[in-house]
Amino acid sequence: MVKNTLNREIPEPYADQYGVYGGEFANIKPYDEHARHINPVKPDHSKLVASIHDAIVATGLKDGMTISFHHHFREGDYVMNMVLAEIAKMGIKNLSIAPSSIANVHEPLIEHIKNGVVTNITSSGLRDKVGAAISSGIMKNPVVIRSHGGRARAIARGDIHIDVAFLGAPSSDEYGNINGTKGKATCGSLGYAMIDAKYADQVVAITDSLMPYPNTPISIPQTDVDYVVQVDAIGDPTGIAKGATRFTKNPKELKIAEYAAEVITKSAYFKNGFSFQTGTGGSSLAVARFLRQAMLDQDIKASFALGGINNSMVELLKEGLVEKIIDVQDFDHPSAVSLGENADHYEIDANMYASPLSKGAVINQLDIAILSALEI
Amino acid sequence: MVKNTLNREIPEPYADQYGVYGGEFANIKPYDEHARHINPVKPDHSKLVASIHDAIVATGLKDGMTISFHHHFREGDYVMNMVLAEIAKMGIKNLSIAPSSIANVHEPLIEHIKNGVVTNITSSGLRDKVGAAISSGIMKNPVVIRSHGGRARAIARGDIHIDVAFLGAPSSDEYGNINGTKGKATCGSLGYAMIDAKYADQVVAITDSLMPYPNTPISIPQTDVDYVVQVDAIGDPTGIAKGATRFTKNPKELKIAEYAAEVITKSAYFKNGFSFQTGTGGSSLAVARFLRQAMLDQDIKASFALGGINNSMVELLKEGLVEKIIDVQDFDHPSAVSLGENADHYEIDANMYASPLSKGAVINQLDIAILSALEI
Repeated sequence: MVKNTLNREIPEPYADQYGVYGGEFANIKPYDEHARHINPVKPDHSKLVASIHDAIVATGLKDGMTISFHHHFREGDYVMNMVLAEIAKMGIKNLSIAPSSIANVHEPLIEHIKNGVVTNITSSGLRDKVGAAISSGIMKNPVVIRSHGGRARAIARGDIHIDVAFLGAPSSDEYGNINGTKGKATCGSLGYAMIDAKYADQVVAITDSLMPYPNTPISIPQTDVDYVVQVDAIGDPTGIAKGATRFTKNPKELKIAEYAAEVITKSAYFKNGFSFQTGTGGSSLAVARFLRQAMLDQDIKASFALGGINNSMVELLKEGLVEKIIDVQDFDHPSAVSLGENADHYEIDANMYASPLSKGAVINQLDIAILSALEI
Repeated sequence: MVKNTLNREIPEPYADQYGVYGGEFANIKPYDEHARHINPVKPDHSKLVASIHDAIVATGLKDGMTISFHHHFREGDYVMNMVLAEIAKMGIKNLSIAPSSIANVHEPLIEHIKNGVVTNITSSGLRDKVGAAISSGIMKNPVVIRSHGGRARAIARGDIHIDVAFLGAPSSDEYGNINGTKGKATCGSLGYAMIDAKYADQVVAITDSLMPYPNTPISIPQTDVDYVVQVDAIGDPTGIAKGATRFTKNPKELKIAEYAAEVITKSAYFKNGFSFQTGTGGSSLAVARFLRQAMLDQDIKASFALGGINNSMVELLKEGLVEKIIDVQDFDHPSAVSLGENADHYEIDANMYASPLSKGAVINQLDIAILSALEI
């Protein structure tokens, strides 16, 4: 056992592999950014491939590699299941997966773990059935959970080296210009996916809405994409606002939100130009609704809201109570629509959102963050 | 002497240092992207420094390093002269400069070369007095000229390693979120500067319009900026549309433009969904004006115009004759305004514009390019 600076004992194999906590700034040191391996695309080369199978073949994916996915569709995601099913069929084994989160919809992952297709997982979230199955001991290697900002940090520094990112693209042209605000299944911001696209050696865009060239706005540019695949459907947009991102009507959750809003409005931070963020969870997301009345009563406006954006924050933007929304992810459909329509609703990537090893993340400028916790 | 594949003789020292031409695709090979050295910014750290002098001190700039500048202000640029004057005063010598172009306004560079402050130059343009002085033999080392796309390629592959980029920012907040469409001296697209910001180890934003946080839209994000300096003026926006980017009334240039437009409209490429680009030079930029009538007469619309954007192209966008403008640089004030106002006028970086080692540049999708040449 190794003791960290908080006097907690950490088993030696993990201490060796990941280090132990040594204080808030112990690892904030200069470093060389991860360099991706680029296969230049020549003129007249088409990036369009006929199927997910063909895309996997084209990338040369093989046993032991690391692949990634984004979770912007949350409980409505079809992409991870489609890709892993094809990989399993092709007999590729021993993969590490590094999605930005894992939801209940990814239950088929349990079989892929049991069959040895997936043997390592690093993620930011891990919910419900998949989480329970892993807790029951189906994996040999421990799962590495990092915060969203910590995942961006790990990718930027090369601690996570993504060989192939398979990215659901609500809309893309044939050359890989992607956004999340147009197409059949919009998810709004692609903030987590942008990081995978930027640092992965190879990127496969999987879309159900192929647009004429050039597709704009460009959240992920053609210079970050190697292959484009068209499929029937990449996700169910109604799945975004399920589970942890639901619009709560639960009286207990609303009461907690009301109390949290009261703590904020009675604090010294509640003044003109303040900024705030709300995380997932019914109570947490409901806080913005309670802040509104206090802002109107006291004539206070926020300079920006950060998130994890839901419709309550969009309403504050429309009312002029929030000047700008800085958006790494959308939690419901109205927020995704707002991102496409309102120039003051601005998309950023996960590195800018919260990486502690960036040249300064937005969270460093944030006054108030409301996060949900199961236990305190 | 070494012979290249075109049977031209290249002096051996240069052949050794830069290689010789071996065919169109001889150097289009997989490679590891350049990795910048990042100094993470901790919470509560301010990026704001009091002067250009203090910024130079903060970066630790020393003899022999490489610094860069962008040329989006063209003949109206104040930044390169201000920074080099301060560097000269501080006694730093033997610098390599890697601006995206050098204009007549940079005449003071001649003295910096003679005094040994600047001993190496790589650029994409080199005009008038500075060009003439260098041709007369004031430099020991040869100047390396690369195309705009070739410069982006060289930076992305690490052939040009920028230690410090000094970037004129028409508007920036204190944390380095920059755009070129707001502020006292707007230049529109920051396409060339975006590459410097992305790959340089350190980036100094020099602005005369400090905005409240967060400044949007974000052409260069806070995650690419180390220091922010406020000065009285960074440039004269009226200088953008001088010289090579003038709106010509010269009858000879207009005649050439008319002929060029005729070649285009009578070619097989002139059909619905075609795309075109016009480079600098009076004739070249005037071609769009002559294309317009043929497009109206034959009911033909372009899918996109690429550039190097001027007001003639913006007028085509407004008329619906061009669906989108893809913009790496603006050649006049109306184009800069359009970029800020029209969602179909879209900003891209120089890598996406034209790098032959990217995952596919926009020029690969381009039907027609009109370039000016002094001799053919």
